Amino acid sequence: MTLSPADGAFLEHLDARLLPGTIQPVEPWHAAEPRRLLVGTARAVATPRTVTEVQRIVRACAEHRVGLIPHGGWTGLVGGQLGDGVPPLLLSTRRLDGVRALHPAAGTATVGAGTILQDLHATAEEADLIFPLTLGSRGSARIGGLLSTNAGGTAVLRYGTMRDLTLGVEAVLPDGALMATAHRLRKSNVGYDLRNLLIGAEGTLGVITAATLRLFPKPAHVASAFLAIPRPGAALDLLARLRRRVGDQVTGCELIDGQGLRWVAEHLPQVRTPLADAPDWSVLVEVSGFDHDPTDTLEAVAAAAMEEGLVGDGVVARSEGQRADFWALRDAIPEANRAIGPVASHDVSVPLECVPDLITEGRAAMRTIAPDLRFNTFGHVGDGNLHYNLFPAAGRTRADYAEIRAELSSRLHDLVVAMGGAISAEHGIGRLKAGEMARLHDPAALAAMRTVKDALDPHGIMNPGAILAART
Amino acid sequence: MTLSPADGAFLEHLDARLLPGTIQPVEPWHAAEPRRLLVGTARAVATPRTVTEVQRIVRACAEHRVGLIPHGGWTGLVGGQLGDGVPPLLLSTRRLDGVRALHPAAGTATVGAGTILQDLHATAEEADLIFPLTLGSRGSARIGGLLSTNAGGTAVLRYGTMRDLTLGVEAVLPDGALMATAHRLRKSNVGYDLRNLLIGAEGTLGVITAATLRLFPKPAHVASAFLAIPRPGAALDLLARLRRRVGDQVTGCELIDGQGLRWVAEHLPQVRTPLADAPDWSVLVEVSGFDHDPTDTLEAVAAAAMEEGLVGDGVVARSEGQRADFWALRDAIPEANRAIGPVASHDVSVPLECVPDLITEGRAAMRTIAPDLRFNTFGHVGDGNLHYNLFPAAGRTRADYAEIRAELSSRLHDLVVAMGGAISAEHGIGRLKAGEMARLHDPAALAAMRTVKDALDPHGIMNPGAILAART
Repeated sequence: MTLSPADGAFLEHLDARLLPGTIQPVEPWHAAEPRRLLVGTARAVATPRTVTEVQRIVRACAEHRVGLIPHGGWTGLVGGQLGDGVPPLLLSTRRLDGVRALHPAAGTATVGAGTILQDLHATAEEADLIFPLTLGSRGSARIGGLLSTNAGGTAVLRYGTMRDLTLGVEAVLPDGALMATAHRLRKSNVGYDLRNLLIGAEGTLGVITAATLRLFPKPAHVASAFLAIPRPGAALDLLARLRRRVGDQVTGCELIDGQGLRWVAEHLPQVRTPLADAPDWSVLVEVSGFDHDPTDTLEAVAAAAMEEGLVGDGVVARSEGQRADFWALRDAIPEANRAIGPVASHDVSVPLECVPDLITEGRAAMRTIAPDLRFNTFGHVGDGNLHYNLFPAAGRTRADYAEIRAELSSRLHDLVVAMGGAISAEHGIGRLKAGEMARLHDPAALAAMRTVKDALDPHGIMNPGAILAART
Repeated sequence: MTLSPADGAFLEHLDARLLPGTIQPVEPWHAAEPRRLLVGTARAVATPRTVTEVQRIVRACAEHRVGLIPHGGWTGLVGGQLGDGVPPLLLSTRRLDGVRALHPAAGTATVGAGTILQDLHATAEEADLIFPLTLGSRGSARIGGLLSTNAGGTAVLRYGTMRDLTLGVEAVLPDGALMATAHRLRKSNVGYDLRNLLIGAEGTLGVITAATLRLFPKPAHVASAFLAIPRPGAALDLLARLRRRVGDQVTGCELIDGQGLRWVAEHLPQVRTPLADAPDWSVLVEVSGFDHDPTDTLEAVAAAAMEEGLVGDGVVARSEGQRADFWALRDAIPEANRAIGPVASHDVSVPLECVPDLITEGRAAMRTIAPDLRFNTFGHVGDGNLHYNLFPAAGRTRADYAEIRAELSSRLHDLVVAMGGAISAEHGIGRLKAGEMARLHDPAALAAMRTVKDALDPHGIMNPGAILAART
């Protein structure tokens, strides 16, 4: 299946069928993905205002065999949002935003795909509820993109990923048909789970236009602690102890690498650090409480752990401001990383008990390839999800490692898969990981995915080249 | 696609490729589904001991175009477990049972599809954990069947359905390929969500052979109350009040119809009833607590509700035994229903706030068709899920209503769909609801399901006629 370019003739044909101003030239910031690791080939972007316009765009692309790449806030880190082959058309969900329906008593919000996560947080807050999923890019990430990548973040431990938080999804399928199923039901067993097929499909099976999401009661109390630990494994011991006391009210457990703290201090000096000197390892834990405050329990567990050498120095937040500081520091880590410029970044997950070995064995393996690498290995340790990032030695740049980058990533992914892990935990596959997925994922699953893709998108117009290699 | 029967020649051919005794004649209790509403045409059942044997069976069925129907504990209520056309082969997962791996610290159990739910409960209990999903048939329902129907039960409010409780699924696909993806990862974004495509597919897309399920910390305290309420809507008000106090620690909220209580008293006199005279409506609510006991909170909320006339008489469990009695009564309701013999049963869900109207309007609509019907409308009100069951007038039998049964169900389903609800909340579609699903579900979704089915199962051998009408 060879695709046709979204050329002048096609864009004129399409423009005549849409509201004025729906099709525009690609803005410079859409020329590459956020880390500039991939540069796209698209020259035009459509920003439909209605679902009917989305259907017209998809139908025109199907009819003319033009590739179509839906995107949200352009915050994706695996290159799923841009075209790398025959120039496709981009479809921004930007104008499909806003809350369609809010039902506080039932705890549901039906929102357009273009809604920004932070705005959904505010909507929930006004109803004295929470939409628990949150991540660093909350100010620009849009619901459609978060769904298409099954985004995770820092509250998955307790509330799950986008998949766990979604009731119904509305989408335009590759033939232009509208699947009007953004239902509000906690339980619906009516045939196959197309909702979860579209969630995480990164726009390769259709365009998600809206969804009904779950809102939760707002915890009356949230207790947070920032604790130095002697080794990564101590974070898991601490988590186990906390669970024994407060069960699944542990809402966050983030591992923080001393390297990350030092780079934040260096490049973002305005960010407050709770502990005097950056410990090699620390953990940010958070516990929610409803009818009573879990702060004392958290403090008691931390104190007991301290006595047994499981925790070194530590601070339990005594105010909402202090708690906000903890998270501001956590959120600053990726920004500081960008200032250094990683040689390679990896978003991987392994079974919980394998996390310490992944850190140790991974570093050893990487050093056999490049002895002078620096590491920042941090993230959602409670989910077994690490952002395993490699950085150049002081005085060198990522470019100096260009020839060995692929080897480094392959070696790390081999290790992850050998531990029963996943080469993408929460970022998705996009274009950057499509080759590694083809190399390492279960063959029967890969074949079934290809069968589903070819059946639902016979012309291969939806986000060609993302997740599965484009058919040529 | 016409299928061939699982005749003597085919069974001989297959038998030669399997361990002795794997293929047997269908036992009498496999001749019909539990309520005897459908009688099956299968004459042989295979009970493989290994996944390799499952692959051989599937390959042989694919090669000879023989229908194959996987089944678990034979507890399904929609006829998904038996063949209604050309005699198919049944595949019992009975021997694919047992725990493959248990990781208490990570909270995961990898179990064979044949594992009985009650046995999984015991395994979790031994590790001081819980597998929260539970239902009346826990003593015979098997994990593979629970997954294939995305079963729900009485703890969905807090812990979700099977889908929410599953990490990875291992399955034999319709071409006989083994998808070895029973992984233990909380987060894995490696391509399409085939796991959730197989969960709820009722054996029409493959045979689930194993899965890794999530185990949860065992609550230190569980508080239960059995409360009389003046009207069904009061259950939702009560739930909202409880949520404001204890958030999502409310783990159960079951609506109980006085008719059900009276039939239990009549047919199962040994079952203890907490309230002296059966109230027309009552609710069984349960709240979990970890670092403190929520009983006083539950009592306070109930007392306040009582003062405002939201609750009449009521009992808060003061012992584990009393709590067990509440649930024994709840579990006895379906058994008493079977003693009466329903005219028609419906497992439906609607948006939470629509539940009271569904009860009232549904009864009015049913009575225009059959004025003398009796009703037992009960179930998981916190999920918006009701078991909307119709019974003959005293002195009459279900047979007396045979001609209007379809009309009654269609009218109720119309009402459910008009409210934005689902005609199957937790039982699935099977064969009994396939026609209603085709009549009422979203057309684009139906078309996409058919496309997926035909692509993954081109010969239509997997559970032909379940969910989607068999292609002829």
